Amino acid sequence: MQFFYHSNLNADNFILSSEESKHCAKALRKSAGSYIFVTDGRGTLIKGELLSVYVEACTVQVVERMENYGLRERTLHLGVAPTKNPNRMEWLVEKCVEIGIEQISFVRCAHSERPHLDLNRMERLAVSAMKQSNTTWLPKMEAIDFQQFIKNYGDSDADKLIAWCDDKNNQQLINYPLKSDKIILLVGPEGDFSKEEIAQCSQCQFTEIKLGNRRLRTETAALYGCVILAGKFLN
Amino acid sequence: MQFFYHSNLNADNFILSSEESKHCAKALRKSAGSYIFVTDGRGTLIKGELLSVYVEACTVQVVERMENYGLRERTLHLGVAPTKNPNRMEWLVEKCVEIGIEQISFVRCAHSERPHLDLNRMERLAVSAMKQSNTTWLPKMEAIDFQQFIKNYGDSDADKLIAWCDDKNNQQLINYPLKSDKIILLVGPEGDFSKEEIAQCSQCQFTEIKLGNRRLRTETAALYGCVILAGKFLN
Repeated sequence: MQFFYHSNLNADNFILSSEESKHCAKALRKSAGSYIFVTDGRGTLIKGELLSVYVEACTVQVVERMENYGLRERTLHLGVAPTKNPNRMEWLVEKCVEIGIEQISFVRCAHSERPHLDLNRMERLAVSAMKQSNTTWLPKMEAIDFQQFIKNYGDSDADKLIAWCDDKNNQQLINYPLKSDKIILLVGPEGDFSKEEIAQCSQCQFTEIKLGNRRLRTETAALYGCVILAGKFLN
Repeated sequence: MQFFYHSNLNADNFILSSEESKHCAKALRKSAGSYIFVTDGRGTLIKGELLSVYVEACTVQVVERMENYGLRERTLHLGVAPTKNPNRMEWLVEKCVEIGIEQISFVRCAHSERPHLDLNRMERLAVSAMKQSNTTWLPKMEAIDFQQFIKNYGDSDADKLIAWCDDKNNQQLINYPLKSDKIILLVGPEGDFSKEEIAQCSQCQFTEIKLGNRRLRTETAALYGCVILAGKFLN
């Protein structure tokens, strides 16, 4: 079974998008009268009956409505410096959705590459990964400058973590004792954060943590952090 | 700094491959008299002096030799059912090398897709990832049938773990208490293991574990498992 996606599930009946209709009618060969599950990526999951099935448009009648489906007690917000190669960020988005991340900020740092980030494409990838992994939450995504990131989230009461390479920093993420129900994890670019950025994070009570003892690519480091946090705190 | 690769470091001086020479002479613009680090992917790391630098051939004189460099106390052997799309396995190999995995078996299961696995290409990707992450160990890689995998490793005294989707299986990997210094983690195909395969693993004292509570793609599940094990046991 795979979920369908529809951005607005407020009405009691609705027509699936052309892409979803095609998938429903052609790939899955559904017929009128059968039931499907549809999510809006914001925690709503409906069980719906297919009233009519055409390749261009399938009409769905809501039979059962579930809100906050699969809502987790804790949330994870990943801030990550975008890589030069957009494939690596797209790959990261797919994996983050599978594992379950509430928010992703692509943070342009002083030492960041500045690639063109196609957020629309990222959204489409996220929807596809969400459907495949039968989840009902899409991460919020944004592209943001480091200064704005600090302005927006620096005084959050979340557990704020920054992963960077410093010999004095010996706190492994897996041993970090969580204090709140929100986590912000910030992972820097290949050239690491600038001294000023680290000082700013320090002022905002970010805790410095390590992601193992290896030199990891940016996207590997980000996923490493998300998996450790998901495994420890988010199940 | 980035390591160079040379498959055989037994001699006291040697000539870098044409690819490595080009990288050394052209991309990094090294000159005779400078020092580089070279690994064979089997734990040997040498510090070498460049005797001559040409785009086609750089000659290296061994100055210092380190054996078992970065050897870990525990080893991880991943068995994973290959995905239809080879990109996903190539991506997994890259990430496994970064995180540090000693062996990868691509295990053809009853419900596996049977793609063409280009092990030579995988080796090249592994070498590239090893150099980038400054490690000195390449994972051993093999393509193998499930029956042969069980025959070869079923009576190993390693901690043998199998990840599969069963409602009765509630042991999360992150809570698994390691007993030995070797870990074998087996991750199945999208269609999961067959009943016979699970029964065989059970006979060989594989412990059933869960990788979180989400439905993950094969390569995501494999990486999830490797990260949790690396974070807990392999640093």
